[in-house]
Amino acid sequence: MTDETNPSGQTNPSGQTNPSGQTNPSGNGARALIETLVAADVDVCFSNPGTSEMHFVAALDDVPGMRGVLCLFEGVASGAADGFARMSGRPAATLLHLGPGLGNAMANLHNARRAHSPIVNIVGDHATYHKQYDAPLESDIDSIAAACEGWFRRSMSPDEVAQDAADAVAAALASPARIATLVLPADVCWLDAPGAVGPSTPEPASAPDPALVAEIAAVLRGDASSVVLIGGRAMLADGVTAAARVGTAAGARLFAETFPARHERGAGLPPVDRLAYLAEFAQMQLDGAEHVVVVDAAAPVSFFAYPGKASVLTPEGCAIHQVPRSVDPVAFLEALAEALDAPAEVAVAEASRPELPSGPLTTDGAAAVIGALLPERAIVVDEANTSGLFIPAATAGAPRHDWLCLTGGSIGVGLPLAVGAAVACPDRPVLALQADGSAMYTLQALWTMVRESLDVTTVIFANHSYAVLNMELQRVGAAQVGPKALSMLDLHGPELDFVSLAQGMGVGATRATTAEEFAEQLAAALATPGPSLIEAVVPPLGF
Amino acid sequence: MTDETNPSGQTNPSGQTNPSGQTNPSGNGARALIETLVAADVDVCFSNPGTSEMHFVAALDDVPGMRGVLCLFEGVASGAADGFARMSGRPAATLLHLGPGLGNAMANLHNARRAHSPIVNIVGDHATYHKQYDAPLESDIDSIAAACEGWFRRSMSPDEVAQDAADAVAAALASPARIATLVLPADVCWLDAPGAVGPSTPEPASAPDPALVAEIAAVLRGDASSVVLIGGRAMLADGVTAAARVGTAAGARLFAETFPARHERGAGLPPVDRLAYLAEFAQMQLDGAEHVVVVDAAAPVSFFAYPGKASVLTPEGCAIHQVPRSVDPVAFLEALAEALDAPAEVAVAEASRPELPSGPLTTDGAAAVIGALLPERAIVVDEANTSGLFIPAATAGAPRHDWLCLTGGSIGVGLPLAVGAAVACPDRPVLALQADGSAMYTLQALWTMVRESLDVTTVIFANHSYAVLNMELQRVGAAQVGPKALSMLDLHGPELDFVSLAQGMGVGATRATTAEEFAEQLAAALATPGPSLIEAVVPPLGF
Repeated sequence: MTDETNPSGQTNPSGQTNPSGQTNPSGNGARALIETLVAADVDVCFSNPGTSEMHFVAALDDVPGMRGVLCLFEGVASGAADGFARMSGRPAATLLHLGPGLGNAMANLHNARRAHSPIVNIVGDHATYHKQYDAPLESDIDSIAAACEGWFRRSMSPDEVAQDAADAVAAALASPARIATLVLPADVCWLDAPGAVGPSTPEPASAPDPALVAEIAAVLRGDASSVVLIGGRAMLADGVTAAARVGTAAGARLFAETFPARHERGAGLPPVDRLAYLAEFAQMQLDGAEHVVVVDAAAPVSFFAYPGKASVLTPEGCAIHQVPRSVDPVAFLEALAEALDAPAEVAVAEASRPELPSGPLTTDGAAAVIGALLPERAIVVDEANTSGLFIPAATAGAPRHDWLCLTGGSIGVGLPLAVGAAVACPDRPVLALQADGSAMYTLQALWTMVRESLDVTTVIFANHSYAVLNMELQRVGAAQVGPKALSMLDLHGPELDFVSLAQGMGVGATRATTAEEFAEQLAAALATPGPSLIEAVVPPLGF
Repeated sequence: MTDETNPSGQTNPSGQTNPSGQTNPSGNGARALIETLVAADVDVCFSNPGTSEMHFVAALDDVPGMRGVLCLFEGVASGAADGFARMSGRPAATLLHLGPGLGNAMANLHNARRAHSPIVNIVGDHATYHKQYDAPLESDIDSIAAACEGWFRRSMSPDEVAQDAADAVAAALASPARIATLVLPADVCWLDAPGAVGPSTPEPASAPDPALVAEIAAVLRGDASSVVLIGGRAMLADGVTAAARVGTAAGARLFAETFPARHERGAGLPPVDRLAYLAEFAQMQLDGAEHVVVVDAAAPVSFFAYPGKASVLTPEGCAIHQVPRSVDPVAFLEALAEALDAPAEVAVAEASRPELPSGPLTTDGAAAVIGALLPERAIVVDEANTSGLFIPAATAGAPRHDWLCLTGGSIGVGLPLAVGAAVACPDRPVLALQADGSAMYTLQALWTMVRESLDVTTVIFANHSYAVLNMELQRVGAAQVGPKALSMLDLHGPELDFVSLAQGMGVGATRATTAEEFAEQLAAALATPGPSLIEAVVPPLGF
């Protein structure tokens, strides 16, 4: 964790609001904080407040620019902030209640950290003078926040809270972006404060180092077998286009990281295969590579360790050329393309859609239905896990869309991501592809979809199993798998009924057991504004 | 956090299993670990595993004595372990998946820490040699675990894992009990291990210091106005009886802490009023006190700070006599009673039940129904919050029962506590009194109740509001409460339908809107083994 105040600038270059920094002399710390956030373009707060946050909540009515979005569980708030950031490039705030609230948010903050999403956590705490009494909710917020590995500060005075907030936003918008956590004691909120301040200037991304560009261009021009591996901010249209130009010019294989935060894809964009989740398949993709150029991604390693299997997935002796994460990856790829005299035009995915299938619903049939019906400009949130294996291929020629992945491996991010993406892009349809076991971690997100009238179509792939763990149980080499072990991976007894669960939170829901039903229900859901849910009953993938 | 290996003993004094400590030379680390836990009487593991825990899961079939209880969310697992510990006095294990799994468990671990419940967390991690690669699920487990403020160790070798497990159990069973967290790398699980070891001996509670007993007896014999405040382990029958003897002999007021972990109460036991949650009322209870003797509790402080209100709830100048937490509180109270020549017999609550009410359901009507119908030996889990205000008085003369509270203020513990209590006491009825907003944090507990056929009757008090926050919003002195603030505390739009939610997880459910319906449904639910749920529609308490 760092606590870096940007020394250069505290004025608002756009002059948006509060340029004087002192427009609210009569307000309290909470109001100064919220006004500062809005001035820095942080205008959504995914909230799950408690008593220590009541002055913050009360101040929401004083600042018209801030939208409070109530979440029934903190993991929904943090995942929604991640989805909002991925689609808008801007941080949302979260409002969390002391250490337990931050703890509940942590799993999806882990995913957000891996997505390099900017987020500003506001964590309420006891009044500064009350902490000494070890009241029941006294908790070690600092230790929990350390696991975010981002920026952290405890605001200690109403005189400083506005500047702390401005610094938090700037810190979140570093290159790459990160999580900023500001601890907000109750008395810092309720005491009189001098008012809001303008935004601090975030640390900009570095320009490409011409020497590094030249060095990597020389590698790619050589005869050795090369791979270009992209991720992060290089996964949008300009990045994949530049990367495809590089790959074409150099005759290098192009891959994307396994689980990108946001991948712009579909007809008219260069196709980029992602590295496989299964290490054995990723090793095949990387087979023979002598050089791997890594741009805004991590060098390929196995998701987990397995007895007798490699952790590092590149071939022995392969050179890794890692472009520093602080460098603007798109600018780097474009500079590299120029250095390689790459063509301006590259091959792109042609428009194509699968035929609508028929018969009992299967995972590949469901994929074909989704490929056939995916709307223009859709935002696809993919936490379908094993049930989603065939969907990327089935949608490769669909109209251009964004694809959001589970970046950090902590399941339960899909529905919250969909909330945040829909808040960020109210004019775009959101399709949440969701495994059943994973859905149960943060199902409360459905309620927020209704409350905020979000245009999210959720497909729950109900295979009644932690199917990925059935696969992993084999892969880790566990001998003699018995009934107790298998019962830990089985979600029958009782079967989850997602139609009832959705209806319990006000979301209209249907169940599909055939491809025809799924196509009909998906078409209807996509044509209807607001949230809806389809339980797609599918068999577990066999391994 | 401490890492204390008990230097004295590594043998199993009861000779229960594995007295040699080396009975499983051919097994792996996971098996040695589980066998050691079972040998130390830790025979339930509330589990939410992932890939890094697959060898642990596979080994469950090798050790018949260990019961794995699958939970769909880690907060259910940690809350269930808390409930199990409160009712059995023994630790359960939890099985959690790296930092995000521990993060999701943290809110209820916070409550367990405040309850002084012994718990052994087993947190799976990447293989020791894999951590260096920063794979997606690499996470700062150590920092998150620090917030448990208990015992922590990372097992680094299959040669040590059994001893680590024995030490973890002994550490959890310290006086007072605490949370022990053992991080378990995947390779430590899967590699060959020398086998299980016998239990380590926990640090016993200290005997009462005669000088302190005499000193406090002298205070209580004096003319000054005194209060005896008990909590923790002093809240069971022997503790409240000894405390009542002390209070009677000394003419002192007797109170219990506001939210005890487990309070044994009802007809035939001495009644003990709890200190009020609202600071103003607690101050009235403590009015005029010149001495407060505190036994296994914290000195009275306000739950939160409020502008212009006191944090410390005892009158100015009041002396606090804190008995060290390491002392056996029941033995201390009994020694104090002897020192005061206290009578053997004290006044006890008489058997009495309210009349069954009629008409539209209200919070006081619901309380009367519960008081009228509470079964013998019931375990009541109370997270009814504002809706539960009248229930303690209405059940004061009910047949003897146990009352489990939200100890740490982190909402979402009720249903998980009920799971754990029911697993610990399969022959006793469990009644979970649950506020609707709080229920939504860990509703997945309902699924585990069905899977494990637990005899839990859940009453959801549906007032469609974070009612306690509406109250707190007034109390913190927030001026000009506007519609945005109020919407953050309101759970209408959409209304949660707990009948559908319960049915979605396989729990039979009904809805009551009149006192007659509630009485009929509660009687039926209590008469039927296994889980059931009643949505009790009540108006929010007016403040």
